[in-house]
This record gives sequence, structure tokens and C-alpha cells, in this order.
Amino acid sequence: MQDQTTAGNLLRTMRANSPLVQCITNFVAMNIAANVMLAAGASPAMVHAEEEAGEFAAISGALTINIGTLSSGWLAGMLKAARSANNAGKPWVLDPVAHYATAFRRKAVAQLLELQPTIIRGNASEIIALAGGTSRGQGVDSRDAVEQAEDSARLLAEKHGCIVAVTGVTDFVTDGQKAKRIAGGSPFMPQVTALGCSLTCLVGAFAAATTNAPFEATVAALAVFAVAGTQAGAAADGPGSFSWRFLDALASLTPEVLDREARVTVA
Amino acid sequence: MQDQTTAGNLLRTMRANSPLVQCITNFVAMNIAANVMLAAGASPAMVHAEEEAGEFAAISGALTINIGTLSSGWLAGMLKAARSANNAGKPWVLDPVAHYATAFRRKAVAQLLELQPTIIRGNASEIIALAGGTSRGQGVDSRDAVEQAEDSARLLAEKHGCIVAVTGVTDFVTDGQKAKRIAGGSPFMPQVTALGCSLTCLVGAFAAATTNAPFEATVAALAVFAVAGTQAGAAADGPGSFSWRFLDALASLTPEVLDREARVTVA
Amino acid sequence: MQDQTTAGNLLRTMRANSPLVQCITNFVAMNIAANVMLAAGASPAMVHAEEEAGEFAAISGALTINIGTLSSGWLAGMLKAARSANNAGKPWVLDPVAHYATAFRRKAVAQLLELQPTIIRGNASEIIALAGGTSRGQGVDSRDAVEQAEDSARLLAEKHGCIVAVTGVTDFVTDGQKAKRIAGGSPFMPQVTALGCSLTCLVGAFAAATTNAPFEATVAALAVFAVAGTQAGAAADGPGSFSWRFLDALASLTPEVLDREARVTVA
Repeated sequence: MQDQTTAGNLLRTMRANSPLVQCITNFVAMNIAANVMLAAGASPAMVHAEEEAGEFAAISGALTINIGTLSSGWLAGMLKAARSANNAGKPWVLDPVAHYATAFRRKAVAQLLELQPTIIRGNASEIIALAGGTSRGQGVDSRDAVEQAEDSARLLAEKHGCIVAVTGVTDFVTDGQKAKRIAGGSPFMPQVTALGCSLTCLVGAFAAATTNAPFEATVAALAVFAVAGTQAGAAADGPGSFSWRFLDALASLTPEVLDREARVTVA
Repeated sequence: MQDQTTAGNLLRTMRANSPLVQCITNFVAMNIAANVMLAAGASPAMVHAEEEAGEFAAISGALTINIGTLSSGWLAGMLKAARSANNAGKPWVLDPVAHYATAFRRKAVAQLLELQPTIIRGNASEIIALAGGTSRGQGVDSRDAVEQAEDSARLLAEKHGCIVAVTGVTDFVTDGQKAKRIAGGSPFMPQVTALGCSLTCLVGAFAAATTNAPFEATVAALAVFAVAGTQAGAAADGPGSFSWRFLDALASLTPEVLDREARVTVA
Repeated sequence: MQDQTTAGNLLRTMRANSPLVQCITNFVAMNIAANVMLAAGASPAMVHAEEEAGEFAAISGALTINIGTLSSGWLAGMLKAARSANNAGKPWVLDPVAHYATAFRRKAVAQLLELQPTIIRGNASEIIALAGGTSRGQGVDSRDAVEQAEDSARLLAEKHGCIVAVTGVTDFVTDGQKAKRIAGGSPFMPQVTALGCSLTCLVGAFAAATTNAPFEATVAALAVFAVAGTQAGAAADGPGSFSWRFLDALASLTPEVLDREARVTVA
């Protein structure tokens, strides 16, 4: 029997459904994240206001929450949306941007973690700090390698009963027991702002289309980014030309090419 | 006598005036909308705070209001700005993004409609729902064809005494009596976020420069998008390369080429 | 002895430090400003909420404040951040976008000026108005030439004991006594939104890496923009293709090329 959970097959399913994903993300990421979602074949909606975030989560296929440009009003919307997603049985993804940087962020992330995200995606510094370790993160940029965050990721996944994805040069995904590594991408990617935030949204799209397999959904989303990133990087002359080539690569990526090019290994 | 209201002539007038347009738009659209306006030759100002939105509307040539990422504070700014525009006799454009999705949006749009927009621009699902029909919209994406929204557009235009523009594969503009269709554009356009929102701002620019003819102003703005979209689409390899080519096409579009290439027909 | 404060040497220092810069900027600018910073080699963090802006300023190398899409809540965050930067001895940059347009902005800028910015960067209309003169600014666009703002810039610099940069076709920087002009750039630059706002952030990055020489830091940041702008402009077909070429040019600009190509003269 053919494996239905290869990245290629999950991409085909995601595009066929074009899932509506409620993305609560930061001001820097909003435009590029929406463009990434549209290029990949999902249907993003940037809805965050406390007045409607809960109602909207109930009609969405998945929810993603990114605390990049957090404020109290937005946090209220995030909490309502996450509770609503939980009540409706919809998966939701947490992106704890620079949560270690201020007391306000640390407290907000603690509140969000209590609502049991289905998936957490962060850079190495964020995941290490979230698991209680000492990271070397500065502002929103990771200064730790993914490899150094693997134990933290497993710990975090087991503690919260969720999938944890650490993204960087080679990504790492775990449910606390099994784990996979996804290689690829481009050195231009950290030079383009908010690609990690955009990936969080795409993880939501795959989770919406594959609700019973969040581990495989996460691996598939990361594989899409890695393969499209490699393709765009090969043709780009810098971060500016990388950006638009990356969107073109996402839009033209076929399931067949994805399965052939994806460099996914068991960790 | 030559027709002074061809799209080309109105583009020439708009560029000669470079009208200051107050754009209250959503977080996703802000950057691309401002770039669209500058490329086309207008002078956008993203001013929305309750503290100044009313004062600013009085000094602007037109106002555009888009409820994409609405919150209560922003709604207050929108209402002040619309009232101020009305008092100053300035045209204003309403873009009722996904107004059917939540109770908060429905109520906000009802309040805005009471302030009598000069022009309403939306996708087919939005216009159908605004006229009281049953749309198939999901999140912010239309799932209805423009053709299915024509009766709703006429109804809405008559009821509110305004111009209604439905944009999609072939656009439709009506004042309730007369109507025109504008063909063109590119299949890449729905794959790029916030182009519709950006078009709303450009409709405002044309309305500012042509205050006595909002129907013709709307048709001209849509023709600019259709022709520049066709040009950009012919050279693009995907949504990423479409975006910047579209801005280049807007900036280099001449009135003569616009009048020659525009596919505007009486409906 | 070699001059350590050439633009090229300061670029080398800035990249070696990759300073964390807290950028409080407007919604239009956030994405492009972060991309400009990353391409140039700095580490931007868009942190503005009142709940954390002060705490974050203390751990940043510099702070930049732009009032482009101001609201009361954001103003509170700006004031906290500026006070915190002052307490920590960190330089901060003020970008008084269209401060003359509304009473709300005028009052906000007066409050911010009391907190003694290290550097003020604006267009000619903004600097003229800030010094008490009569500008012809419309909305956010300058309608005055840089040359007309030179006396205002000197006056302002002396009055507030800060560096003042007026940017336009040929930039002008002064500390009230000495002054320099920086030529270069491209006619496409005013057609791309928020490049001035992005430059304000980059001035912050250079100020963070060169705390004892804010005049030279400002000149260096402007020289980077002028040289990269000239390079991108030479290859671009319009504002859309200019944008990504500009990011590529920033990323590939070497200190050697910068010193060779920079057109900096004593005023």
C-alpha cells in the first residue's frame, strides 16, 4: 500500500481542500504570510480582534498564533481564538516569537501553553528557552543551532502532548517519541523577514487538511518550505530576488517534485 | 468632441493632480496598497487612528475604508473619517471585506453603509451578501462568480444611491441603472494577497480626481488594474514575479496604451 | 592614520556587531524596514507595545521611533521606550512622519522632542515644519527640496543638540555646526513606500554600532542607501523591480565598494 502521508500526498490533499486558516500573526509577517499561503494553495484569513477571533476560529479549519508584535488587546483575541479552536476540535499552532525577551511575552506564552497547542514551531533559541534551558537568542533572531534544541524539543513535546518543530538550517520535528529531520532551504532565508512566521501559517494549513496526523502535517509543511527554498535559492542573487522566487516556487511545486526532492530522514 | 472620461484621460488627470487619498485599510494590504498608489501616480496616506482620522479626511481628496482587519478602535476612526468626508463633500469608498463572516463585521458594515459611501467595491460573495443574498464566500475569498452578483450590485447601488463595483475575472460596475464590464487581469491576481484592497485605494484616487463622475472614475481605476494586470501576467512565472511586474506595469502605463488596451463594454 | 569613520569602515563594524535595534515604526513600513535591516546586516526587532517597549529598549543597541501610523497606545509605548533608551545611554532616532498634518501628531512630536532624540531624520517638508517654518508638505510626501531645508536642519540640530538628516534627491546631515551632503539614490525611491522609514531604522543600526559618533553613523547609513539605490536603480524597470534589487544591492554591498562609490561632500 502506498504511503498516504508523504509530503507530496499531503500537499495534494491540502490544495484540494484549500483550507481556511485563521492566522493571528504579527504586523511584519502579515503580507508575506498571506502570500505564502495563497501561493501554496491555502486560504488564509488574518483575523485577530477580540471582537471576532473566537467566532472565526469555529469556522476555520485551523488556527495559528504568533506573538511577534504582541499587545494586551491581541493577547485577549489569541486566548479567545485558542479556546474556540479547542472547543471546535480544530488544531492550532503556536509560534512563540522571542518569548524570552520580556516579562510580558513570557507570561503570555505561559497562558497560551495552558491551552494546549497542537503544534509548536520556533527557532532553536525559542524552543530551548521554552523548555527551560538557557538560550543565546538576541531579539527575534536565534543564535543557537537546531541540533542544540533537539532535547528541548522532545521534552517540550512530551510535557505538553504536542508536536514541536525547530526550524533552522536542518529542521527537527518530534512528538516526543519519534522524530524527523528536514534538510534544504537556502542561506537567504534568514535574511528575509518573517519566513518562519509564514511557515507557522503553512503548518496550520497542513494541519487543517490532515487533522488526524499533525506530526506528518508538520513534516510536510517544512518539506514544502525546504524544497521551494532550495529551488528559489539556486536562482536568487540576494534576499530580495529570493523572496519573489520563493513564492513562485511554492506556487509551481508539484506533489511529485516535492516527494522526489524532499530530504526527510528519521532522527 | 473627444470623450474626457475615457480611462486614459482620467488617468492623465489623476496623475496631474496626484491626489492625497486617506486609506484606512487592513494590516495585510497597507504596504502593497501604498506601493500600488505611488506606482499609479497617487499620494496615499495611511491614517486611521480615531485621534486624527476625522481631521485628516477633511484635507484629503478622497477616503477609502476597508474592514479587513477590523477592531473597535479602528471602527471608531472609520466612522469619524467617513462623517468628516461627507461634511467636506469628499468621495469615499467602502470595501466590505468578508463582512458576512462574523457578527462584529456585519454590524460594522451596517454602520458604515448608513454614512452613504460614494462607491462600494467588493468581490462577488461580498456584494451578494451585502444585498441580502446567500453567498458562498469562505473567509476573505470569493467563491461566487461576478456574473452571479450583477443583480445584487444593481440592487445595492439603487438602494444606497452609490456606485457598486464587483471585481473578479471580469469586473462589473453599476450605478443601479447603467453598467459596464471590464475584462483583463491575470489568473495570478487572486494568488497575490490584498490586490483587491489596493484597487479600492486606487478607486479612491480616481474618485478624488474626478469628483463629479464616480461611475467613470471607478471604471477607469478598474481598467488600469485590468490592463496592468494583463501586462504583468504575460511576463510572470508565478505570483511572486507577478507582484513586482504589476507595480512596474502600473508605473509605466500611459494613457494612450490604457485607452487602446482597455476592454470596457456596456453591460 | 586611516580614517575609521568612513562609511565603509562603519558598515564593516555594524555588520560585525549585527546590532539589535528596536524599531517602532508604522504598519506600512514594518516588513520592508525589517528586510532592509536584515539585508544590510543588522538585527531588527519590531517591538512597540506599551507593555514591553521600555524593557526592550534597555536590551537593544539603539531605538528608532517613527510616527507614521500613530495612535495613543503606540505613543505611550514610544515615550516609555525613549525614556528607557535615555536611561540606558542608548541612542535613539526620531522620524516625525507628516507631523504637521494633524494636531495629534504635532502634540506627539513635541512630547518626543522633549526626550532629546540623538538623531532626527525626515524629508524636507518635515524638517522645515519642525523648525517652525512653513512647508508645502501634503500628507506624507515632501513637496520641498532638501536645499530649502538646510537652514531649518541646522537650527533644529542646535536647538535640540542632536544630529538632523534631511533626505531627498541629495541628502543633508548636520550637527548644527558641520554638515555633509550625500548624493546618489534613484528616482524610483520616492515611488516605493516606506524607504525613508526603513532608512531611519538603518540609521539606528549604525548609531548602535558607533555610539560615540552619531554624525558619522548617520552619514554612513545614508551613504549605504545612496550607493545601493544607485545600483538598484540602474538595473530596474520600475518601482517594483527596484524594490527587490535594492535589497539585493544592500546585501551584496561591500565596504570597499561603498567607500569607492559614496558621493559624500562637506557642506
